[in-house]
Amino acid sequence: MFDSVTPPIIPPILGVVGLVVAFIIYMLVRRYPEGEDKVKQIADKIHRGAMVFMRREYLLLAIFAAVLFVLLLLEREHLGWNTAIAFVIGALASGSAGFFGMYTATKSNVRTTTAAQVNGAPAALSVAFFGGSIMGLAVASFGLLGLGIVYYLFGDPEHAHYIHGFGMGASTVALFSRVGGGIYTKSADVGADLVGKTEENIPEDDPRNPGVIADNVGDNVGDVAGMGSDIFESYCGSMIASIAIAATLSAVDLSVLDAGSADKTREWLMALPLTLASAGLICSIIGIGVVRTQSNRDPSFALRLGMIVTPVLFLIAAYFLISGYAQLTLNIFWSVLAGSVGGIIIGLITEFYTSGRPIRKIAEQGKTGAATVLITGLATGMQSVLIPIVTICAIIFVSTSLAGLYGVAIAAVGLLATVGMTMAVDAYGPVADNAGGIAEMGGLGEDVRAITDSLDELGNTTAAMGKGFAIGAAALAALAIIAAYVETIEFVTNESFILHIGDPKVLIGLFLGGLTAFLISSITMQAVGDAAEKMIEEIRRQFREISGLREGTAEPDNDTCIQIATNAALVKMIPPGVIAVFLPPLVGFTLGPEALGGLLGGGLIGCVLLALTMANAGGAWDNAKKYVEKGALGEGHEKGSETHSATVVGDTVGDPFKDTSGPSMNILINVMAIVSLVIAPVIA
Amino acid sequence: MFDSVTPPIIPPILGVVGLVVAFIIYMLVRRYPEGEDKVKQIADKIHRGAMVFMRREYLLLAIFAAVLFVLLLLEREHLGWNTAIAFVIGALASGSAGFFGMYTATKSNVRTTTAAQVNGAPAALSVAFFGGSIMGLAVASFGLLGLGIVYYLFGDPEHAHYIHGFGMGASTVALFSRVGGGIYTKSADVGADLVGKTEENIPEDDPRNPGVIADNVGDNVGDVAGMGSDIFESYCGSMIASIAIAATLSAVDLSVLDAGSADKTREWLMALPLTLASAGLICSIIGIGVVRTQSNRDPSFALRLGMIVTPVLFLIAAYFLISGYAQLTLNIFWSVLAGSVGGIIIGLITEFYTSGRPIRKIAEQGKTGAATVLITGLATGMQSVLIPIVTICAIIFVSTSLAGLYGVAIAAVGLLATVGMTMAVDAYGPVADNAGGIAEMGGLGEDVRAITDSLDELGNTTAAMGKGFAIGAAALAALAIIAAYVETIEFVTNESFILHIGDPKVLIGLFLGGLTAFLISSITMQAVGDAAEKMIEEIRRQFREISGLREGTAEPDNDTCIQIATNAALVKMIPPGVIAVFLPPLVGFTLGPEALGGLLGGGLIGCVLLALTMANAGGAWDNAKKYVEKGALGEGHEKGSETHSATVVGDTVGDPFKDTSGPSMNILINVMAIVSLVIAPVIA
Repeated sequence: MFDSVTPPIIPPILGVVGLVVAFIIYMLVRRYPEGEDKVKQIADKIHRGAMVFMRREYLLLAIFAAVLFVLLLLEREHLGWNTAIAFVIGALASGSAGFFGMYTATKSNVRTTTAAQVNGAPAALSVAFFGGSIMGLAVASFGLLGLGIVYYLFGDPEHAHYIHGFGMGASTVALFSRVGGGIYTKSADVGADLVGKTEENIPEDDPRNPGVIADNVGDNVGDVAGMGSDIFESYCGSMIASIAIAATLSAVDLSVLDAGSADKTREWLMALPLTLASAGLICSIIGIGVVRTQSNRDPSFALRLGMIVTPVLFLIAAYFLISGYAQLTLNIFWSVLAGSVGGIIIGLITEFYTSGRPIRKIAEQGKTGAATVLITGLATGMQSVLIPIVTICAIIFVSTSLAGLYGVAIAAVGLLATVGMTMAVDAYGPVADNAGGIAEMGGLGEDVRAITDSLDELGNTTAAMGKGFAIGAAALAALAIIAAYVETIEFVTNESFILHIGDPKVLIGLFLGGLTAFLISSITMQAVGDAAEKMIEEIRRQFREISGLREGTAEPDNDTCIQIATNAALVKMIPPGVIAVFLPPLVGFTLGPEALGGLLGGGLIGCVLLALTMANAGGAWDNAKKYVEKGALGEGHEKGSETHSATVVGDTVGDPFKDTSGPSMNILINVMAIVSLVIAPVIA
Repeated sequence: MFDSVTPPIIPPILGVVGLVVAFIIYMLVRRYPEGEDKVKQIADKIHRGAMVFMRREYLLLAIFAAVLFVLLLLEREHLGWNTAIAFVIGALASGSAGFFGMYTATKSNVRTTTAAQVNGAPAALSVAFFGGSIMGLAVASFGLLGLGIVYYLFGDPEHAHYIHGFGMGASTVALFSRVGGGIYTKSADVGADLVGKTEENIPEDDPRNPGVIADNVGDNVGDVAGMGSDIFESYCGSMIASIAIAATLSAVDLSVLDAGSADKTREWLMALPLTLASAGLICSIIGIGVVRTQSNRDPSFALRLGMIVTPVLFLIAAYFLISGYAQLTLNIFWSVLAGSVGGIIIGLITEFYTSGRPIRKIAEQGKTGAATVLITGLATGMQSVLIPIVTICAIIFVSTSLAGLYGVAIAAVGLLATVGMTMAVDAYGPVADNAGGIAEMGGLGEDVRAITDSLDELGNTTAAMGKGFAIGAAALAALAIIAAYVETIEFVTNESFILHIGDPKVLIGLFLGGLTAFLISSITMQAVGDAAEKMIEEIRRQFREISGLREGTAEPDNDTCIQIATNAALVKMIPPGVIAVFLPPLVGFTLGPEALGGLLGGGLIGCVLLALTMANAGGAWDNAKKYVEKGALGEGHEKGSETHSATVVGDTVGDPFKDTSGPSMNILINVMAIVSLVIAPVIA
């Protein structure tokens, strides 16, 4: 239809447009009042706590990135300045998305509380959703802007491998944000709950609890910034993988994917990911508008409508872009469709496992004690991998049958293109959660709390779907990057590169990859346990030593708790980070590219299975506890009963599962894959 | 040196010799008195309960085996009568080993109790160890006899693939014994403990507890028969894999492994596994004699001496058999050595994780409640995979570098050849445990209980090592069978058969394999949870309805509890059994041999990682609880404290981990691998 492919200046421009929209929304949020002084002060504490953590985290990240930057420079033949620059842009883009998203989230939470108090539920939903959608737009826009610039610089087959550096930068930031944020949020949560709820018998988010501010900070650094950088990484990773595969496809493979201008096919295939993502951003902005206009009616309906409108619009756009504009085979569109539909299925099944029948069964087990709650929850988590894994297999089968390895990569792009909307809905949850916390701490009364609770409940459902979606997206993105790794090695060596399971090196790699998933899970889980213990000791100390704290006449020392969580997170995120970044080169340079390929394969299987198991077991325990708290099991089993205590144990075990170790798996496999892709030309 | 390879009649003859020795030992055990009437009656109940379960289990197995037998017959081109006959012999041999081992174990337990009462500790150790060693010898002897006969019939390159049927028979029996036994033992254990210890505050093994006989039956059907058939399967599987690889090696590969008579190399390589196993049986008999003669001194020393003498003797014998007798390259010996040493390392590391520092840390966490006990235990389990997996990788690396894929298989044979001794030490544990239970139920007083407790404690240590050993052995055996699968497909198609991870079918297989491990874990864990719930309800009912039960003036209704455990085990072992046996043909026939190869690869990684995690987490929780019970944490944290309750929750969750789901993983991957090997010629 057209003679030239999408001008590479368009994605960065759209990225800027997205940021402008995000800024406008931020201005809209700012127009809502912050509320009473007391409430304002609490919100300010949360905001400052989050900013302190971010500053210290980014300082550490800068040091780590500087080391990697130098290492990339040292390898001049294949990487050098170009890769290093792409790396820095990736790190900056990811860091900026996390920072702005979290900055605005901590500005939106208190305004949500006050809107609930002054204007009622619809206004509160608007503010909370606006707060989340800034995060969503920041992720999508910084992705398009940053990757767009790098693509503008290196978007030809000869230089395309420099783009991998962008992914490495983004995933390094994501790794630390996710792991650090995950440790922060759960050490504060577990610590505050175990002393507050269990020992002192004071409600959640009670201002007397010294750990409560840290807990609320944790929601922001873990669920907003951590989740955002995680999704950012998958989003860019899937695009980078598509570009890498397109750049290295053989002439035969190319001809299969073309439906018109054969000489432009490679260019089109390389440009397609950013083109689709550009369309996805526009659709997301429309979707956010739809939610906003409908939120005066039913909040749940508004969110669901937005979540349906956006992907449908995107798929229509993708159809015309692929077949009409780019004149590529429709098979590519079917791959995109497979990715989109698969992502929705994985999200829905996650929702099922963290609500419905499974949680009722776990709650029932509370009657025979904590042990049976745990056995059933673990069994539920392990069982929940079935449909998502079969779905992933189906996506692999469909997309590769239709469009080869490029098909898998573009399917992942299809899943992630509407990330602006998905992430908006996802980040809405922690904003609503925080709003509830502020209402409780500010003593704003039952009515306000009822509104924020209803928003929070809705947020939990969308967050469950978001978690499933994040795992599916990460799995496909990692898979695409692994495929790009194989293609790159073949392209560089000009020989076929086979990862034969029967090859001892590949087999050893497979074992080591699976091992790494278990090991990182163990390290992060233990980190939460250790940090929570310190938090428990500190909170107990304050209740013991600060007279009048229990009675509410003295102020707790929140800052010490914030410091404990911050220090623990920063110290304990280093070992998993170092393992994830340096294991691939270690294996690649000592055992060779085959072993590294095996490592990625084993890591992928291990990470996806553990991520699903832990996310769903954790979510199920959490909701089983809430189910008991609602009094659903009848007399003798309500809140405060032994049955309830049993489910609280499940929930506490589930905390690091679903918010620390589980999410770390997504990012672990992506970091290992992208680092391998970057070093592929060197070890080939 | 000699002109002809080992005559194939020797292994079966040695098998018969082993059975004769086992019978003599049984006669020695019989000479010990059964003891007082009350004790005799209790033992008789346990014996009868075990026999009822075995009879019903074997009936179900016979039906299942008949179906498979007919299916094998239906495929006449590659399998037919020969495979079907080998299958039946394998099933009979495995079933016989399990039956005789358990029969004699349930005869030895009461005699151990009485020996402790009448003759003191050394005599008690002798009886318990004799009881276990009958199981050890039964496994080794029935293996040599059965596989020897099949090898006698089909031990030439042209017919060797019929031998695979033997492995399928053995592993089908093992699967049901392991899974059924695991569900039985833990549903009874969890049920009896949760009501008895927690609700009624009566000690373990108290005769008033209606579930206590079922619990003791469970130790026999799970830990003796289940473990025995599991090891039997690995033992024969590793030999079958070596034979299969040797039968299909190319001339080039053959020449590498030869050090003298090139024309006989293949024959020698095929004969070597049974030759080594024959030597291993003789060394095991010597080792059993050593333990017996030394047991009058320090029991712990006697067991350790036997565990050292046997493999050392075996390695010396293996050296001469390989280099002197068979004139094969010494590289094969080094592979055998690598397997043996690796097995010991994995056993020792298991012992570390279920004692020492890790359990102290878990016990300490009891002070902050059950949730932290669980988090730390799970983290410990996941961390414990590191050294075993690295060891397995090292074995793979060393053995394949030295002797190709045959090296891995013969390394597994090296690990398993002294199974007579390993299994003897392993089965000694449950016999001692049962002896303690009988002493408690019979009210034999503190002195007797002290002796049986000390035997039991020793048994726990050896059992921990045995569990690690079983996982290592199963992993290597499965790996060898998978290698044989690849070789067989290549041999049949006469084309190279590559399991490239980049191939979508292989990748889908990998995902499905990993998924299967998680799914079977979930199913077996849930089975224990559900069965335990029924058991809890029944025991509560009896305490409620039988007046005088609590006071000890009325008898409990043990039989109903036995029936509940039996029925639950038999019903709930069917789904995992069916999945394990029928998934490989389903994948193989629909998605092709590549996907099936991927399934085995993914299954191997998933099963080994989960098996190690669950076994070690479970063992660590168990021993952390015992550590607290000893009063090691000081005042306020002894038995009956909240700290203790927290560790009891860990132990209860660990029960299905370490004795049901974890061990099921060993057998799952072996069943899937051997079924794939059997159907390889058909799907090729």
